[in-house]
Amino acid sequence: MRIETICTGDELLTGLTADTNSRYFQELLLDRTGLQVRRSVVVGDVREDIIEALDAAAARCDVVLVSGGLGPTADDITVDCAAEAAGVTVIEDQSVIEHLKERYVKRGFVLTELNRRQARRPVDAEAVINQEGAAPLIVHHRGACTFFFVPGVPREYHHLVERHVVSRVAALAAKELKPEVRELRLLRTVGIPESQLDAKVRPLFEKHPQVIFGFRTHPPENQLKLMATGADSASARRALDAAERDARTMLGRVVFGVDEHSLPEVVLDLLRARKETVSCAESCTGGLVSARLTDPAGASDVMLGGAVTYATSLKESLAHVAHETIATYTAVSAEVALEMARGIRKTTGSTWGVSTTGIAGPTGGTEVTPVGTVFVAASNGERDIVERHLFIGDRERIRRFASFAALDVLRRLLEDVKS
Amino acid sequence: MRIETICTGDELLTGLTADTNSRYFQELLLDRTGLQVRRSVVVGDVREDIIEALDAAAARCDVVLVSGGLGPTADDITVDCAAEAAGVTVIEDQSVIEHLKERYVKRGFVLTELNRRQARRPVDAEAVINQEGAAPLIVHHRGACTFFFVPGVPREYHHLVERHVVSRVAALAAKELKPEVRELRLLRTVGIPESQLDAKVRPLFEKHPQVIFGFRTHPPENQLKLMATGADSASARRALDAAERDARTMLGRVVFGVDEHSLPEVVLDLLRARKETVSCAESCTGGLVSARLTDPAGASDVMLGGAVTYATSLKESLAHVAHETIATYTAVSAEVALEMARGIRKTTGSTWGVSTTGIAGPTGGTEVTPVGTVFVAASNGERDIVERHLFIGDRERIRRFASFAALDVLRRLLEDVKS
Repeated sequence: MRIETICTGDELLTGLTADTNSRYFQELLLDRTGLQVRRSVVVGDVREDIIEALDAAAARCDVVLVSGGLGPTADDITVDCAAEAAGVTVIEDQSVIEHLKERYVKRGFVLTELNRRQARRPVDAEAVINQEGAAPLIVHHRGACTFFFVPGVPREYHHLVERHVVSRVAALAAKELKPEVRELRLLRTVGIPESQLDAKVRPLFEKHPQVIFGFRTHPPENQLKLMATGADSASARRALDAAERDARTMLGRVVFGVDEHSLPEVVLDLLRARKETVSCAESCTGGLVSARLTDPAGASDVMLGGAVTYATSLKESLAHVAHETIATYTAVSAEVALEMARGIRKTTGSTWGVSTTGIAGPTGGTEVTPVGTVFVAASNGERDIVERHLFIGDRERIRRFASFAALDVLRRLLEDVKS
Repeated sequence: MRIETICTGDELLTGLTADTNSRYFQELLLDRTGLQVRRSVVVGDVREDIIEALDAAAARCDVVLVSGGLGPTADDITVDCAAEAAGVTVIEDQSVIEHLKERYVKRGFVLTELNRRQARRPVDAEAVINQEGAAPLIVHHRGACTFFFVPGVPREYHHLVERHVVSRVAALAAKELKPEVRELRLLRTVGIPESQLDAKVRPLFEKHPQVIFGFRTHPPENQLKLMATGADSASARRALDAAERDARTMLGRVVFGVDEHSLPEVVLDLLRARKETVSCAESCTGGLVSARLTDPAGASDVMLGGAVTYATSLKESLAHVAHETIATYTAVSAEVALEMARGIRKTTGSTWGVSTTGIAGPTGGTEVTPVGTVFVAASNGERDIVERHLFIGDRERIRRFASFAALDVLRRLLEDVKS
């Protein structure tokens, strides 16, 4: 089954706007059906280019998803191009007119001629009402090829693709595909490079033929994506369970969570289960650790706050670091990180403290403490961990990696210390 | 002049990896030459698909930029496809072999057969050494069409495109283009929606025919992009100056900076010029304001740090908010925001304080204080501003918008108060 996408829009060819829609469709299609998009084309709002792309795709494809150019203005020419390419006329779809009337009346507007343009479709096409917007999904058959036309507005595109297009593509493909169920699982890691993750997991590929292993990277997080197919959900899930078990054995503690569970959420949930609290003392990360810990909704249960002790004096006054410790070991040291993690607990009254101090650069490095050196620590006053990291890259990357390292040191300590 | 791009790579069709290279080329080409890419195609590592895309492009284009598939492994088939499509043979380029030897010898390796693959090119093509990697830029003429083949690795792609491809395209286009100089300027705003920015500036289009007005959005920042063409740099810059003056008159204080100058940098520079300092007291933003203020290198000159007072008790202990103020007005109030901005100065000894308190949601809203309500304040102890905002959207968006609003209130107060 050959599937291609065509996106139309001048703005997609100037570098100003990214085509994120196609990626959404590609991933959803692959996850739900195992089918891969074969080619992806972007053309401007140019009649001859659109028609040429439609004709070329019709000649070689089974399915084509076309997005953009379904708005109300004169620039929106996709419906006309589709009809012209197929050699058919354009008509107004009554069900869409009713939908538009309802939408606009609700807001106290009347339907204009421009609005009515969005109800147009090739005479032999089907219009599927768009619950998230005005322009419908248009399904148009040309010979053996089925075209799906959807608006380019991401919210509407996502809705129509997720709700209607992928299931129809799956139905079209049903004759070709074995009736299989697909199940997905994401193992999320920090602290291991993608190449090492790959190398550690690769020996498992042969042992789990029912599972497809994939990798995704959102630095510093690297994810192992497992996809299992089976005759039914239970069999696919059993295959995933077995692969996950083996992968965890190979990977150990770098796996912090599964599926939608982010590192801050894992940490907050560990704390919540123990009815304990946390606060942060941050130097080089300048607030990023706290920002991440307050990103999930409901963080205020367990996250009290903390201090950004960018100036050395604030390390003493807000995080209770002894003046002598800084004088002896310098502000960027394991000793200071540890005292910060311990000290911020006194300031805020939290069970746990977490801290960062380091050199984010681009200047300020020394022979002994080069740019990228970051100490992270976590403590509950009785047990603590302090780690030295050396991150490579620019200031933004060093700060981002450091903030994840701080959360992860807390995560591992929470897992180790019985509540 | 017709220009298209072809990217090859299976990973670009699974939704896992974004094609950011094409956007880079599109924008650079437009900025440097005014030329627009006409079509952008992504195909997998499939011989027939690549050859078909090369042939179709050769038939209609003047310039085609092809990326990917120049690595050392057997999957990397772009050179073979290019030669096969053009009906020519492949040879090993001696200058590239020398370059590879030098690269690998430096690292203590010897050149393997796989390595040598990266020196291959169509017999009638030119190889341009890649200073950032192994595979060269390959320039190949087919009839009236010039193909540029570059590696897909972003660092190498950027280097070769920026250094060699764009200038060669400009040279090819020189016959068609008037010998004009292009100058760019970005006016950066916060606090105004893109639609309003557009509506306010649109009346200027006619008055400045030498200037192309464009808009870019990086929420909550909206940018006005001015591009002027002229016989020389001075004339283009005069046109930009005139357009900028008029745009500033229309837009007023929402313009916070120009070109690369980000809002945190503008605030830090204003402080630096006055030899003053700042600290933050954050509630709903949970550290984002501090994180932004410590993002630029060298922030430690003027940014001391501050407190994340997520828990109410910390608003009192770390930001000197009176217990009665919270009891009377609640934690999410103008009064508390103001006392936080004033109080954090006492804690840190900074000249200026900036604060946020609000409801980021998705729960916690009331009739009087719905989700999205955020108070931001700035103070130097004598003059202060406190503002109430209502941001729409999810938690992430509300927190992001709030952090910019806090920085912007400080920016405007710094501009108002003479040092």
